[in-house]
Amino acid sequence: MKQSINTVAITGGTHGNELTGAHLVKHWLSHADEVKRDSFSTELHLTNPKANQSIRRYIDQDLNRQFSLKDLKDSKLKGVEQLRAKSLNELLGPKENPRVDFIIDMHTTTANMGMSLIFNSSDPLVVGMAFYVKQKMPHATLFFNPAERLEDNFLTSMGRLNGFLIEVGPIAQGLLNYQVYSDTHAAVMHGLDYLESRNMGQSISLPNQMVGFQFIKKVPLPQNENGEITAMIHPNLQDKDYHAIEPGDPLFITMAGETIAYQGESTVYGAFINEAAYYDQNIGFSFMEKINIVLKDNDH
Amino acid sequence: MKQSINTVAITGGTHGNELTGAHLVKHWLSHADEVKRDSFSTELHLTNPKANQSIRRYIDQDLNRQFSLKDLKDSKLKGVEQLRAKSLNELLGPKENPRVDFIIDMHTTTANMGMSLIFNSSDPLVVGMAFYVKQKMPHATLFFNPAERLEDNFLTSMGRLNGFLIEVGPIAQGLLNYQVYSDTHAAVMHGLDYLESRNMGQSISLPNQMVGFQFIKKVPLPQNENGEITAMIHPNLQDKDYHAIEPGDPLFITMAGETIAYQGESTVYGAFINEAAYYDQNIGFSFMEKINIVLKDNDH
Repeated sequence: MKQSINTVAITGGTHGNELTGAHLVKHWLSHADEVKRDSFSTELHLTNPKANQSIRRYIDQDLNRQFSLKDLKDSKLKGVEQLRAKSLNELLGPKENPRVDFIIDMHTTTANMGMSLIFNSSDPLVVGMAFYVKQKMPHATLFFNPAERLEDNFLTSMGRLNGFLIEVGPIAQGLLNYQVYSDTHAAVMHGLDYLESRNMGQSISLPNQMVGFQFIKKVPLPQNENGEITAMIHPNLQDKDYHAIEPGDPLFITMAGETIAYQGESTVYGAFINEAAYYDQNIGFSFMEKINIVLKDNDH
Repeated sequence: MKQSINTVAITGGTHGNELTGAHLVKHWLSHADEVKRDSFSTELHLTNPKANQSIRRYIDQDLNRQFSLKDLKDSKLKGVEQLRAKSLNELLGPKENPRVDFIIDMHTTTANMGMSLIFNSSDPLVVGMAFYVKQKMPHATLFFNPAERLEDNFLTSMGRLNGFLIEVGPIAQGLLNYQVYSDTHAAVMHGLDYLESRNMGQSISLPNQMVGFQFIKKVPLPQNENGEITAMIHPNLQDKDYHAIEPGDPLFITMAGETIAYQGESTVYGAFINEAAYYDQNIGFSFMEKINIVLKDNDH
C-alpha cells in the first residue's frame, strides 16, 4: 500500500526576482479550479514576498538554501530568509514530520536550460513524477541532485514525500515571458495529474529508466587576487547547457580575449551556464554527468 | 571651422546591474592603449559605483534620468542618484558649459534590440558617429530620441557636443556575455576612431541619410485597479524589436491566455520589448516610427 498524498503545496517567488512562479501563484489564487484535484488539497504559497516586492533574489540570504533541519533549528540564524524559512517550517512542516506531503517549487534561470525538472530524491514517487512530466513534455531535462531529505537545504525538501523543482530558462530576472509562463503552467498541471493518478491507484505506464544529468560541482569564474572576475563564459559554451564538454574544450574567455580550456580528462556536461544569480559567488556554471535514472518499484 | 574635440568620456555602470559597460571601463583602466587616440584625451568613468556594487539598476532613482539642467540645479533632489548626478555635473560639466566634449555611455537591455545606437541630437557630429558605426557594424540599428541638450535627462547630454548611448541586447541583468561585451567594445572603438578622424580633418565617406527609428511613446502593460499587471508581452511580439506592428497585431496576452491587439490605425515598430528595468513602471515596450535620418552638412 502506497502512502497517499493529502496535501500538495505549489510555491513561487522563492527567489524574488523570478516573476514566473510568483505570478502563477497569484493567477491560481483566483483560478483555483486549475490546480484543484479530487484526491488531495492544493495550497498556493508566495514563499518570499519581501524579496518579491523588491524584485530581488533575496534580501539577506538565498531562501532556497535555508531548509536543512540543522539550520531550521539554529536560533542564531536571523536573516530575513533564515527567519522566513523558520516560518515556512511552521507553515509546511515541521521538517521532521511535515504536514504538507509534496512541494512543487517554480523557478527560472538566465541559463539556456529549457525546462529542467530538478529533484533531489530517488523515491519512486518523485522519480515517477519526473518521468511522467518528461513523457508529456519531451523537451524537458531530468536534473538529479541527490540529497538526504533532512539535510537537504531546498524548499522542496520540506515535503513529507519530498518535492520537485521546475526550473525554466533562459529568461532574464525581473520579467515575464509567455512561453516560460505557459511551459511552467503545463508542467505543474502534469505534476498534479501524476499525483492524482498515483492517489487513485491508476496504472501509469512509465519506462524503467530515463537519461538525465547528475550534479557534480560548481565551476568558479576565473578571478584575480582581489576576487574580481577576469573572464566570461566562452561563446562556444554559452547557451550549451546539457551539451558535452570534452577535454580541451573552451570554458572561459578573459576580458582580453584569451581562451581558458577544460583541463579534465573525462567528458562532462554543463548546466546553469552563466546564471546571473551565481555571480554573487563568482560561479560560472555547473559540471554535470550524464546518467541513467532508474525508477524503482516501477509497477506499470 | 569645426569645433574640435579635446576630451571624450567613456562611461559604464550608469545602471548598476548592466555589467558589460562597468567591466569594459575596468578593462580599459588597465588597457588604456585601446582607448587612447592622438587628437583628444579619453577619460573612463564608473558612473554609479554604489548601484554597481549592489548589482542593482539604481539605489533610489534611475541615474540616466537625472541630468536635466533643472534637476541638476534642484537642491531638494537628494536621492543617491540625484546626488550622484550633481557630482557628475561637477566632474564632467557644468551642464551649461561642459568640460567634457563628448560622452559615450554603455548600456545593455533584456530586449532583443541587437546593437542599438541611441542618440538624442541631430548635430552632424553625433549623427555622423551613428552613421559611421553603422557602416562598420551593419547589424546596428539607429535609435533617435530627439531632446534639447539642456532639458535632456540622459547622461550623454552632459557632453558639450552631446554624446552617444550604446545599448546592446538581449542580455539578462547581472551577468556578462562575450558577444555583447565584444560588440560593445568594437562600437566604442569605432566611435573613438570617428572622433579622431573628425578632429584630424580626415574625409569620411558617409551617406546623406540612413533609415532609423524615432521614439514615439512608451506602452504600459495592462494592469488591474490595484496596479498589478494582468498580461504579458504576446509571444508574437516578444523578441520582435524593430519589426512592424500593424493594426490588429497582438501586443499582449493575459495571464488567462486572452490576446490584446494593437488598436491603432498606422504601422508602428516596437523597441525595448519586455525590458525588465521598465517593470517598475509597468512599461511593456516602446512604440517607434521608422524614419529617414538626415546627416546635415555632410561634407564627404
